[in-house]
Amino acid sequence: MKPVPPSRDAYGQQIRAFLERGTPVEIVERDDGFVNAGPTNASYFADLRHWSKPEQRAIRCARGRTALDVGCGAGRVALHLQARGFRVIAIDNSPLAVKTARSRGVKDARLLPFENVGTLPRGIVDTVVMFGNNFGLFGSYSRAKRLLRQMHRITRDGAVLLVQSLDPYQTDEPAHRKYQRLNRRRGRMSGQIRIRIRYQEWVGRWFDYLLVSPAEMSAIVDGTGWDVDRFFTVDNPRYTAVIRRV
Amino acid sequence: MKPVPPSRDAYGQQIRAFLERGTPVEIVERDDGFVNAGPTNASYFADLRHWSKPEQRAIRCARGRTALDVGCGAGRVALHLQARGFRVIAIDNSPLAVKTARSRGVKDARLLPFENVGTLPRGIVDTVVMFGNNFGLFGSYSRAKRLLRQMHRITRDGAVLLVQSLDPYQTDEPAHRKYQRLNRRRGRMSGQIRIRIRYQEWVGRWFDYLLVSPAEMSAIVDGTGWDVDRFFTVDNPRYTAVIRRV
Repeated sequence: MKPVPPSRDAYGQQIRAFLERGTPVEIVERDDGFVNAGPTNASYFADLRHWSKPEQRAIRCARGRTALDVGCGAGRVALHLQARGFRVIAIDNSPLAVKTARSRGVKDARLLPFENVGTLPRGIVDTVVMFGNNFGLFGSYSRAKRLLRQMHRITRDGAVLLVQSLDPYQTDEPAHRKYQRLNRRRGRMSGQIRIRIRYQEWVGRWFDYLLVSPAEMSAIVDGTGWDVDRFFTVDNPRYTAVIRRV
Repeated sequence: MKPVPPSRDAYGQQIRAFLERGTPVEIVERDDGFVNAGPTNASYFADLRHWSKPEQRAIRCARGRTALDVGCGAGRVALHLQARGFRVIAIDNSPLAVKTARSRGVKDARLLPFENVGTLPRGIVDTVVMFGNNFGLFGSYSRAKRLLRQMHRITRDGAVLLVQSLDPYQTDEPAHRKYQRLNRRRGRMSGQIRIRIRYQEWVGRWFDYLLVSPAEMSAIVDGTGWDVDRFFTVDNPRYTAVIRRV
């Protein structure tokens, strides 16, 4: 798995443009042609007070000395944890996101695809954070199982994963329900969406992003050396989970 | 030229969604892959106070009894002119836009492609309005010449066209400048953009939309039975023009 080449780094381009010109909208295209434009860019830069309630609650469970921020984007989580005294390793697949995170003060931001997280040294991480829907970076059921086992190796006793996801079943949108049925027919999880980012003339690479219900998350985690400890949610399909190393 | 089939009516779907759910963003895809997401939907519903200054100034030049609103969208111009006592014929290519305009009180909203404007009776219209960049609906230099002559037939002595366009040369965006160079090399006007609307799973038809500088507008109008009388602009690539029947 290689990092995104700069010519396909629509995500990083959009993050940098937000920083420079305040472009607020992120355009996500799904492989069935569904496009979504959300005012999400500001959220990549938000400080703790502006995070969702479930994220604010879960981040209190960060523990230990060393944290790993998966899909760090512009570095909001890494900056918060650094300020709390953590040593933070922030990884992202986007060259421009990494550059942006560094320019904002993230001390150790690395261009490292999540797929290669197992190349980090054994037993060094106490807290892993995957916020902003980044449980989705697990991509699929089987990939999640494999990567959770690798994360078990790079973490220490008592480590926690703090993750955020979106329950795909909490929607009335017919196009989403149709896409989920199609996914099930072809043996994918309902919320395994194939998407790419569009920004001006930049067209990102297609990638699989996995949205799961709390029950599905528990099933994925089961048997990988981790256990879901608790969920936080506030009347919303978005929720966070605290997952403990066993 | 046929109206847009309902299955391709991304534009109308987005207008209706704004009315029902407040979805603010319009996604426009150009044929070079450039996408733009602008918070333009509210503008389709704006009342006079929220129109651009150049539109506010040009609309004062509306005259006579009967007005034609070309590309009426949700009907903002038609509703304003009706309130001023005009008989208004509002035309649009989008079935859902026409339905939306009717539901908001436009008395005579018709599903009629601009291409077929010449099918209206001779000599009935006093004022034609093409706001919201709708000079663009002329599509190309030659199509504009032909449709201006047809509009000469359906209008009365002393008629005016009130149009709004966007000067394509007032941009520093490298992707736009590159697209304009490509256009010139293939014999199109610099600002003749091929675009389509995307909204959720709806993918609009590709169509040509013509952005012109004031000088290009004068050249297009020349010899068609119309003359540019004056321009209104306010430090902005957007401007309006009052064009008089000669």
